[in-house]
Amino acid sequence: MDGTVGDLGEEGLVARIVQGAGAMPRGVVLGPGDDAAVVACPDGSVVLTTDLLVEGRHFRRDWSGPADIGHRCVAESLADVAAMGARPTSVVIGLGLPGDVEVAWVDEFLAAAVAECARGKAALVGGDVVSAETVIVCVTATGDLGGNAPVTRSGARAGDVVAVCGRLGWAAAGLAVLSRGFRSPRALVDAHRRPEPPYDAGVRAAKAGATALMDVSDGLLLDAGRLASASGVTLSLESGCLEVGEPVATAAAAYHVDPLVWVLGGGDDHALLATFPEGTRLPKGFVRIGTVEAADGDAAVLVDGTVPEIDPGYRHFS
Amino acid sequence: MDGTVGDLGEEGLVARIVQGAGAMPRGVVLGPGDDAAVVACPDGSVVLTTDLLVEGRHFRRDWSGPADIGHRCVAESLADVAAMGARPTSVVIGLGLPGDVEVAWVDEFLAAAVAECARGKAALVGGDVVSAETVIVCVTATGDLGGNAPVTRSGARAGDVVAVCGRLGWAAAGLAVLSRGFRSPRALVDAHRRPEPPYDAGVRAAKAGATALMDVSDGLLLDAGRLASASGVTLSLESGCLEVGEPVATAAAAYHVDPLVWVLGGGDDHALLATFPEGTRLPKGFVRIGTVEAADGDAAVLVDGTVPEIDPGYRHFS
Repeated sequence: MDGTVGDLGEEGLVARIVQGAGAMPRGVVLGPGDDAAVVACPDGSVVLTTDLLVEGRHFRRDWSGPADIGHRCVAESLADVAAMGARPTSVVIGLGLPGDVEVAWVDEFLAAAVAECARGKAALVGGDVVSAETVIVCVTATGDLGGNAPVTRSGARAGDVVAVCGRLGWAAAGLAVLSRGFRSPRALVDAHRRPEPPYDAGVRAAKAGATALMDVSDGLLLDAGRLASASGVTLSLESGCLEVGEPVATAAAAYHVDPLVWVLGGGDDHALLATFPEGTRLPKGFVRIGTVEAADGDAAVLVDGTVPEIDPGYRHFS
Repeated sequence: MDGTVGDLGEEGLVARIVQGAGAMPRGVVLGPGDDAAVVACPDGSVVLTTDLLVEGRHFRRDWSGPADIGHRCVAESLADVAAMGARPTSVVIGLGLPGDVEVAWVDEFLAAAVAECARGKAALVGGDVVSAETVIVCVTATGDLGGNAPVTRSGARAGDVVAVCGRLGWAAAGLAVLSRGFRSPRALVDAHRRPEPPYDAGVRAAKAGATALMDVSDGLLLDAGRLASASGVTLSLESGCLEVGEPVATAAAAYHVDPLVWVLGGGDDHALLATFPEGTRLPKGFVRIGTVEAADGDAAVLVDGTVPEIDPGYRHFS
């Protein structure tokens, strides 16, 4: 038994985390334990993104175990790297912990964070640990563009094809299940607890000539609206092209919910939303879901030709 | 009047922050507003460091205004970049805010963060804004080594000279002033609220051949102990070489405190602690404060030949 974080103290905790980060892969010039890490940038530039996650807002310790939280926080940031068309390279984590958190909790959190880094071929190279009232996780990830230009949200042009890679609505369905006090179906609960963003698809999209690319973190409608606004276009989606996963459909039927509410409005799956020039052979994993049209007034996103009336997705401070 | 963060909402707040970040300097390939930023790395590698600061632990909103907090959070991370012998290049900020925080508070925080970035010749290139119970700031900074090797904590060798650049004890004296309910002397209060790390000194130390380098954030004794442990040496400091600033001496006399308690134990000034080979002409701003000796049992740091009996500095979870 290792007791609590408070028992272990800051120095002990940092030493444990440095050890837990494991051996550094090639590309890490200097790993954890100094004032800063040093990571190779073969492209001559670095992709940089940060995500702050706070207990009670982004996760609940009674719904998600430490491994789920460690996994998910890393996944969110690596998905943002992929969404630029880059490959993830490294991660640093700022971790706020109440003193009464068990050291075993931190161990499990860390192991999952390191495992998800490895799935994204990135290394956990550093961080900061502080005492706090609740668990706070801030993950910053870096990536390398490998000579490609970054694929932004603003490059979609009328006539382009809209495509998506990855799940939509699974995490929202899982959250609905948990909110009702259930722990199954497992596939949905796991989708909420442990999204699996398709990291490699970002580079594939860039190589295939994607004109715009972004991570769907707050819901397809909301994020598609952001892409549309940044590009000055309207995205016209076709609901018949949106795959409704079998467990999503089943849960929706059980709860008398339109599954499209989850598919269009649900966040946290971290699918990649992309646009490609018409006629592009879509890269592996991408499915066509609509077309880009010239901007139509304020209608950033249409579904089957009309402005959808469902809640578009999660917004903070609202 | 712009009301509160809750009135403005997430999209409005992000737009305001993107605008507040200002024009991007050369070296920023892609600034705020997309899934991630892209920053040039002329060295072919990137220095990366993250610091998490939480209201009530690292700052109090009744003691420090938004500008102080924005300034200080950025300064801490840029100091870590300098402490590797690198020049700062960019900053991303994860910001947690209660919904009732005034937009004007965020504006002032942001303006100060941007100003401190500029003082360090870095750009604010991105971030994340979320709702939270208290103010949370996670600053991640990048830096460029300009072809130099990173200067770690572990390179100090017996016979080296120990030197410091920047203030020691000023922020601790300022905190003592504030803790007693006073707002002056202003120089000390400002030193606590707005440390001014000597960013350029990091590169100067690297070029001068520093064998070890680190940021003094938690107190000279504690951080010198870390450097000594990492290098496997003992640092033998001479109290007569430690400058006691005039306001520090005055406050210490008024409070009947030994000023060396602040100079040796006080954190948050972000001086740079370095070791140089004997005979090195110390770079501008560095002052000799002792020598490196072969490891002497557990005695990582000696002051005037003995193990000091004062509290070495700030530790989390203790």
